[in-house]
Amino acid sequence: MISKNEIKQIKLLEQKKHRKQNGLFVAEGPKVVSDLLLAGIKPSVIYATAECKLPVKTNRHEVTANELQRISFLQHPQQVIGIFQIPEQNDTTVQPPVSGLHLALDDVQDPGNLGTIIRIADWFGIDTIYCSLNTADVWNPKVIQATMGSVAHVKVYYVDLPLFLKNCSLPIYGTLLDGNNIYEQKLEANGIIIMGNEGNGISKEVRPLITNKLLIPNYRKGNTAESLNVAIATAITCAEFRRHK
Amino acid sequence: MISKNEIKQIKLLEQKKHRKQNGLFVAEGPKVVSDLLLAGIKPSVIYATAECKLPVKTNRHEVTANELQRISFLQHPQQVIGIFQIPEQNDTTVQPPVSGLHLALDDVQDPGNLGTIIRIADWFGIDTIYCSLNTADVWNPKVIQATMGSVAHVKVYYVDLPLFLKNCSLPIYGTLLDGNNIYEQKLEANGIIIMGNEGNGISKEVRPLITNKLLIPNYRKGNTAESLNVAIATAITCAEFRRHK
Repeated sequence: MISKNEIKQIKLLEQKKHRKQNGLFVAEGPKVVSDLLLAGIKPSVIYATAECKLPVKTNRHEVTANELQRISFLQHPQQVIGIFQIPEQNDTTVQPPVSGLHLALDDVQDPGNLGTIIRIADWFGIDTIYCSLNTADVWNPKVIQATMGSVAHVKVYYVDLPLFLKNCSLPIYGTLLDGNNIYEQKLEANGIIIMGNEGNGISKEVRPLITNKLLIPNYRKGNTAESLNVAIATAITCAEFRRHK
Repeated sequence: MISKNEIKQIKLLEQKKHRKQNGLFVAEGPKVVSDLLLAGIKPSVIYATAECKLPVKTNRHEVTANELQRISFLQHPQQVIGIFQIPEQNDTTVQPPVSGLHLALDDVQDPGNLGTIIRIADWFGIDTIYCSLNTADVWNPKVIQATMGSVAHVKVYYVDLPLFLKNCSLPIYGTLLDGNNIYEQKLEANGIIIMGNEGNGISKEVRPLITNKLLIPNYRKGNTAESLNVAIATAITCAEFRRHK
């Protein structure tokens, strides 16, 4: 049995304020929940139906499919919902990296885009994403679901992005309309790739800090798609960096 | 004023059955509506608020923001909603292409993914997408919105995909777990790139028809993202074909 108050408390975790107050976030489905458990993220409660085969012993709370539906953020809940503790992390002390390939997000707003970008980073072996303070919150349930478990493998920090980049000695890459064809550039193994906001691209504070301007060329003559979705552009850019490696 | 019956008829267009019966589909926002109009797609009615600056004279129906909200499929409606006529097209007579680069979708289910793939095709100058009969419907409002207007530039056909591919003389590319590193393959300028279902990949009927098996390499050691979203994989694959051109 889940009490009404329990349902209410879980539903409140859709809001950043409540996630922060309680230090908790929600993850759903066997794949995402098991990836988080494997990565050592501490569960507060795991609500699972009888059919759920996850080897969770502690804090497991058996629920009916109907109860799962009531606490889920998905249209089609999948066997298990985990309430996890947000890992402790002091973002204010994060120092700019001195090696490796990293992503920086300048006000990416859509949770689905952020989650997909985390999944892409995981695929391409990028361990760290630095987000501007206005980027969507990584612990938002929609972000967690879109990562498909990759949130367990990629570190996400929130920083004052312009200040952070000013103190960074690595090459700073950004895709801009006046950039150079990405396929004709030397791409370093170490660097930071900046991706901008869905509507406005990279902000005017961050733009002057880019040391290497890139352009993903468009292959349509005449009428054309005017832009690529930010997650799509991230994928193409990361793939090209890794191809060079 | 919009009547209750009008609202009901528009809302029914969320369902494929009703779109087919009425030969109509819904598109929202100035960008998408204007791209469709520019491409010559015929509007049945254009509902627009006073602030909407689109130069639409015929069939324009002025509405309040409140009325727009009531007929919209979006959380945040944007000035204009167009009810358009589905262009006539006889998919059963479509012949396999003999040149050019094309996409084929084998049961892509998520409307957002289909729409994003259409937008990617547009960016990379791919004019035609052949969909299996179980692929999401292109005229679904969620697909139309995700294309951001690119649906006006890319032809989408629904065909018996295995049969269609059997009759196709072009190289048939597909990304598979046992494929060859895409960055080490010769990619032809003419061919069909198959992308599979979100959960199951390329179907067992279509798999044997692939002439060139590709793999998008994964760059994470140890724990890893097990897959890429199908739209992301489409983008990386199309980018690589176009880079070779």
